[in-house]
Amino acid sequence: MAKPEGSAEDRLIARYFRPLATHPGALGLADDAAILVPPPGCDLVLKADAIIGGVHFFPDDPAGAVGRKALRVNLSDLAAKGAKPVGFLLSLALPAGTPDAWLADFADGLRADAQFYGCPLFGGDTDRTPGPVMVSIAAFGTVPHGSMVRRSGAKPGDCVFVSGTIGDAALGVKLRREPALAARYQLEPRERDHLLARYLIPEPRVDLSEQIRLQASAAMDVSDGLAGDLAKLCAASGVSADVEIEQVPLSDAARRVVAVDEPARELAVTGGDDYEVVCTIAAENREAFRAAALASGVAVTEIGRIVAGRAAPRFRDRHGHPLEFAHPSFSHF
Amino acid sequence: MAKPEGSAEDRLIARYFRPLATHPGALGLADDAAILVPPPGCDLVLKADAIIGGVHFFPDDPAGAVGRKALRVNLSDLAAKGAKPVGFLLSLALPAGTPDAWLADFADGLRADAQFYGCPLFGGDTDRTPGPVMVSIAAFGTVPHGSMVRRSGAKPGDCVFVSGTIGDAALGVKLRREPALAARYQLEPRERDHLLARYLIPEPRVDLSEQIRLQASAAMDVSDGLAGDLAKLCAASGVSADVEIEQVPLSDAARRVVAVDEPARELAVTGGDDYEVVCTIAAENREAFRAAALASGVAVTEIGRIVAGRAAPRFRDRHGHPLEFAHPSFSHF
Repeated sequence: MAKPEGSAEDRLIARYFRPLATHPGALGLADDAAILVPPPGCDLVLKADAIIGGVHFFPDDPAGAVGRKALRVNLSDLAAKGAKPVGFLLSLALPAGTPDAWLADFADGLRADAQFYGCPLFGGDTDRTPGPVMVSIAAFGTVPHGSMVRRSGAKPGDCVFVSGTIGDAALGVKLRREPALAARYQLEPRERDHLLARYLIPEPRVDLSEQIRLQASAAMDVSDGLAGDLAKLCAASGVSADVEIEQVPLSDAARRVVAVDEPARELAVTGGDDYEVVCTIAAENREAFRAAALASGVAVTEIGRIVAGRAAPRFRDRHGHPLEFAHPSFSHF
Repeated sequence: MAKPEGSAEDRLIARYFRPLATHPGALGLADDAAILVPPPGCDLVLKADAIIGGVHFFPDDPAGAVGRKALRVNLSDLAAKGAKPVGFLLSLALPAGTPDAWLADFADGLRADAQFYGCPLFGGDTDRTPGPVMVSIAAFGTVPHGSMVRRSGAKPGDCVFVSGTIGDAALGVKLRREPALAARYQLEPRERDHLLARYLIPEPRVDLSEQIRLQASAAMDVSDGLAGDLAKLCAASGVSADVEIEQVPLSDAARRVVAVDEPARELAVTGGDDYEVVCTIAAENREAFRAAALASGVAVTEIGRIVAGRAAPRFRDRHGHPLEFAHPSFSHF
């Protein structure tokens, strides 16, 4: 006889994930699909990004951090497109023997962020996998009709801005793999922890999204390295860029590393996992953008200019000499 | 110097997946997110479901079939909710060394179905994984505002219908694991191949979705076994059901198996992967529903009635004796 109380999978979903499904359209995760009533006059912005154990996070990362990162990498894209988060779908693949405590911690982290960013769970599925944990999220945001910020709108003369600081996560993952480097880099414990934390849990620039939408001619999130991502933005816009590498904002911790090991500056601008925003702003709006960004709680820094032409963006040192990067961008393939 | 032509990952996406991104809102997969302009007066229906090599398909299944199955399991849910497909997002995790030919075949299968079902690719991501292939799809459909068909609307007296035939896929996967069973079951090669094909590539009942939306009081797709899924529908509706197991429609091939091995009938109604629809129809509409379903090209069969009470649905044999199933439903956990 069939059990009306449902399968173990249903019970797992009810216990760990129903608390995240606070939107009425999620139907308490008790149906096969969710309902999203689109706000009038808005476009939906759609993004899917997955993270995999041993690839995008360390298998021994705290489960709560894994849950947060999975959502945040998607929120970072929505923010860079000027979109306000609405909700997300989750496909979760778990190895056999995943402890209940892991799952509870994962769901707690995800719930905290879903609540903080106003981005509830709408639905999804859970599966067993013979492979590592994989968390696939599809996230939805809204923008007023026609206002999603694209990669393709940069114009010669525009100023290139980035949010926050660049390179922390790439240095953090290096320190995670080689803990002894912290001493070589003469890092204080709090500096080391800052870099480690920036890799562990990214900070999506959700608070900046409205100003990006109102003021940016082009934008994208920086997830595969600033140099490579700016190159993609320039290619999509049919322009080039001139960047002075020493203008790229570094955290105190990253500056300390670069002071000891100047080549680490290249890693900072080419490594991945920043989850900052790179955007272009018409020159006459640069001060207004900087002020409005700061007012929304996010520091932004001008790092260069968009120039005519289709050459790859030029990164120059303080003497104006162009730099050659060995690995300009992260790629899985 | 950053390469404006992008990374190997960008080239892979451009080569294999851009041809699937036929909707203008996908921006040719050349941006970080996609734009969906919701049709006025419609709700969006959201669904995410993933398939994993060695779990939901055999690692040596043809790659084109894997691509098709990944989309079809989601289209099946949309159809059961009465929704018209709009598009999907894809997160694809590939082991190192996946041959280009595999990927080309996968993308070809996915493209053929995206085109056939009018459900283009809007975006997504590709990753390397140390585990098996995992294909996570989030699919979107539309219904006129307020008309998504839920699990929860079944009423005592409603007729229970299923589409197509039940149990083929569960028998197909059994034959795939034990090919010698084909001889024991006295199956013709075409009967064996029918069962194998029903597991390999499901047939989502997209053509039935409009009639479900217009006529069904409750519906869901049958993916974890008819007995268990009907139990979920009844639980959500606060009702029970009375089903005569011999009314459950079987294909010629499945009937042949059951003739030789009567216990296989239990597997047919409890095994997973049918991707048919179970729905409930007010008794006065049963003939109209059957006729309209046939006119849309899908046979539907009445298998029982919704009854009052909260007991698990009763499956009875031809003598009216209630049956007890050892494993009423498939569950990953």
